[in-house]
Amino acid sequence: MELRLAAIVESLGGELLGDPEHRVDGIASLERAGPRQIGFVAQDRYAGLLRQTRAGCLVVRESLREAAAARGPAIVCDDPYLYYARLSQWWARAQRVPVEPGVHPTAWVEDGAVVDRSAHVGPWVQVCRHAVVAAGAVIEASCHIGAGARVGEGTRMAPRAVLMHGCSLGARGIVHSGAVIGADGFGFAPHQGRWEKIEQLGGVCIGDDVEIGANTCIDRGALEDTVLEDGVKLDNLVQIGHNVHVGAHTAMAGCAGVAGSARIGRHCTLGGGAIVLGHLELADHVHITAATVVTRSIREPGRYSGLFPFDDNASWEKNAATLRQLHSLRERIRALEKKP
Amino acid sequence: MELRLAAIVESLGGELLGDPEHRVDGIASLERAGPRQIGFVAQDRYAGLLRQTRAGCLVVRESLREAAAARGPAIVCDDPYLYYARLSQWWARAQRVPVEPGVHPTAWVEDGAVVDRSAHVGPWVQVCRHAVVAAGAVIEASCHIGAGARVGEGTRMAPRAVLMHGCSLGARGIVHSGAVIGADGFGFAPHQGRWEKIEQLGGVCIGDDVEIGANTCIDRGALEDTVLEDGVKLDNLVQIGHNVHVGAHTAMAGCAGVAGSARIGRHCTLGGGAIVLGHLELADHVHITAATVVTRSIREPGRYSGLFPFDDNASWEKNAATLRQLHSLRERIRALEKKP
Amino acid sequence: MELRLAAIVESLGGELLGDPEHRVDGIASLERAGPRQIGFVAQDRYAGLLRQTRAGCLVVRESLREAAAARGPAIVCDDPYLYYARLSQWWARAQRVPVEPGVHPTAWVEDGAVVDRSAHVGPWVQVCRHAVVAAGAVIEASCHIGAGARVGEGTRMAPRAVLMHGCSLGARGIVHSGAVIGADGFGFAPHQGRWEKIEQLGGVCIGDDVEIGANTCIDRGALEDTVLEDGVKLDNLVQIGHNVHVGAHTAMAGCAGVAGSARIGRHCTLGGGAIVLGHLELADHVHITAATVVTRSIREPGRYSGLFPFDDNASWEKNAATLRQLHSLRERIRALEKKP
Repeated sequence: MELRLAAIVESLGGELLGDPEHRVDGIASLERAGPRQIGFVAQDRYAGLLRQTRAGCLVVRESLREAAAARGPAIVCDDPYLYYARLSQWWARAQRVPVEPGVHPTAWVEDGAVVDRSAHVGPWVQVCRHAVVAAGAVIEASCHIGAGARVGEGTRMAPRAVLMHGCSLGARGIVHSGAVIGADGFGFAPHQGRWEKIEQLGGVCIGDDVEIGANTCIDRGALEDTVLEDGVKLDNLVQIGHNVHVGAHTAMAGCAGVAGSARIGRHCTLGGGAIVLGHLELADHVHITAATVVTRSIREPGRYSGLFPFDDNASWEKNAATLRQLHSLRERIRALEKKP
Repeated sequence: MELRLAAIVESLGGELLGDPEHRVDGIASLERAGPRQIGFVAQDRYAGLLRQTRAGCLVVRESLREAAAARGPAIVCDDPYLYYARLSQWWARAQRVPVEPGVHPTAWVEDGAVVDRSAHVGPWVQVCRHAVVAAGAVIEASCHIGAGARVGEGTRMAPRAVLMHGCSLGARGIVHSGAVIGADGFGFAPHQGRWEKIEQLGGVCIGDDVEIGANTCIDRGALEDTVLEDGVKLDNLVQIGHNVHVGAHTAMAGCAGVAGSARIGRHCTLGGGAIVLGHLELADHVHITAATVVTRSIREPGRYSGLFPFDDNASWEKNAATLRQLHSLRERIRALEKKP
Repeated sequence: MELRLAAIVESLGGELLGDPEHRVDGIASLERAGPRQIGFVAQDRYAGLLRQTRAGCLVVRESLREAAAARGPAIVCDDPYLYYARLSQWWARAQRVPVEPGVHPTAWVEDGAVVDRSAHVGPWVQVCRHAVVAAGAVIEASCHIGAGARVGEGTRMAPRAVLMHGCSLGARGIVHSGAVIGADGFGFAPHQGRWEKIEQLGGVCIGDDVEIGANTCIDRGALEDTVLEDGVKLDNLVQIGHNVHVGAHTAMAGCAGVAGSARIGRHCTLGGGAIVLGHLELADHVHITAATVVTRSIREPGRYSGLFPFDDNASWEKNAATLRQLHSLRERIRALEKKP
């Protein structure tokens, strides 16, 4: 695909400096971009790369207007990173092979299931009884849609995604391969040294514009539903326990985990591998650093951290060994302080 | 479904206080229950909720008998949480659509495989040569049962679960979607800067009443089998390395990992994200806190922990930076102590 | 299968001590081996087991030659562990049922896809348009090979592995069940409290002799490809973010995670659950201990660690509580040092 810079600005806005007829055929990082590609200077600290890049056009903020114009075509806008996101969407739409509506002959749609005529259901997809696949939804190969489950308008399920019975996905969502929505929550009553299963009678209710990463798991609730509000974004291999409530526009990076019945606010972020223990509450706008374990509720917005600083192995060993005596060190400091 | 309280007590025991003809149509949390729902007060510390809940019937211990009776129908029993588990099972059985025995026309059962007539094999399931699916087993869509593998009586494999060749699942088990049982263990011999594969010649042997979470992986043994004894419960996204032995009735929460050749005792628990390193042994009744890394064997029952306390980011940064000098702090304390 | 010791040595080298006609029918650990099995003493510290084992033949280093010969047949070689790897491969090849070339009648090969005549494509595999499956590749049940994707010669994809559009796998690779190669990287631009999707326009490019564990995820690049060089080995449930570059012969244990745009050197190892944060660089020959979080680039080869030492719960609680005051402890030590 080849695009005139003028066409880009007409569609996405911004102010074009330089030749409107200049053409680009791709987006690239500043390091790799050539004269036929467009690059983005999302942060002023990358301004140094501006002189070195061979990009055919640069998208910059107002503050870099002159520096960018001095080297060739440029687009000035408020938020180059957002501009990049929108241009990537345009590019993806243009490259994407259109999906044909209809049900693949090898799919298995059970009685009482409703598949909208504009939806696409791929090979070896099982749409169980009373399930609903709404207009424009795309269900790729070998997905499973359980009894009474619902896939919202325009939502895409990548190959091998699973939506168990009675669970619902909102509109415009994306579920990546291998994600499992609605497996049983992990609930057992101890009894005479054994575990008695607590059947998980709730479901999973997912809002609009939610993206769920590959092999991520979202368990169904014990009694009521596990809930993800609108705009939530989960990366790969994330674990969401039963009864969890995730507020709108919260994002979690890969391998994060939220234990049962926790309640995460809106506009929160969890770094990769972060864990929130069960039954806790996080306020809105709480940001958890990667690999941090949240062990009590957080009522105030802000950034919270708790990870062991890594070091060369020998230094770590010495410090870690001392850490196991930390409490007694404190006692020794106290004793010293009491000395006359 | 609607149930008379008298019917519940007849079936599950306990002492009924109040109108035996009162009817409920669901189980709910104390906060959400209405007059047609039954609620549980599992712990005395929730007794405060007892006055506020609108639940049509409460299940309580002896200690709350009077308080519960004062507000309406109640069931008194030894262990309300266990009662809840059993009632949830009853509810689930009543709601579940019965699974028809038989092999779906799209399934592929190879020569020499044996599928019991009472078992259900769903669409696009491959049952490889010499595999066995025992009576009452339910194999849902797109599961894979490798050559010579065995699924025990009444065991259920949810859509897309994988049981590789030569592995066996006991009776009354549940394997959730995307779980992979019997992929190769991670074994390589280093040789001239490369990794030479060690073929994994063992299998996986899983006992009765075992539940395995979504997208959990249990690797086959290098020479002998990886073993999970009866009653083991694994949550989602758990990793069990090759040659691991997990004792009966041990439970592991989401994202826990056990490295190769570790031996975990009976009645142990691993919290979410906990890791046990390879070749270690854990005694029976060992409980590992979430996100703790076990780096040496544990011979005594008890609770063990090792996680960095989280804090607001600024406080954490100061403490973490100091932690890297902890050993030298100890030296400085020593020097101070030696001062006259 | 039964093997003469002479045949083993002819094929794999080493010096045979004792009866060349002695036969073995399996490999076993020293503890479990019987007279018909061959055992390996990979490290001198296991020499003590040499006297107790009932193995019919022992493979040892030169240093244990005499001790081994004194008890029966033995093979002396430079590297018993490597010898074990090679013998395991021989055993596996001999036991493996040969896979028939050809496309299963239930597979779905789209127009323009090319499947080599010597390749095997199993049931319910979708090979999308313009995808290539090279000679000798084995694609097991329900795998997905996206449009324009490429599977190299002799590479095996276990049941339910996913290779998304435009991604490529080199030769002689193994992809275990449930692995997802080429799902979207996790990229969003924040905009007015919402996340605007950045379409992921790159792919995944994987070299030769790479093994990828069960349910492991490797995301496609944002603009350029995510790259795994030759000989990389990933265990189960590993997460590789978009744009990551993993150098040749690097290995990662289960549940490790590498965040976006990180660059890992060659011959590195990551222990189980280790995390490398985004945009960092690790030099060649860097070894990260299990559960360590790498928060800055590492320029020097060596071993690096950072994990909280676990303890009995009471001791941990005391030390962890004190840790949150560590910075102030340092101040108190300073104050004490300044005292006259």
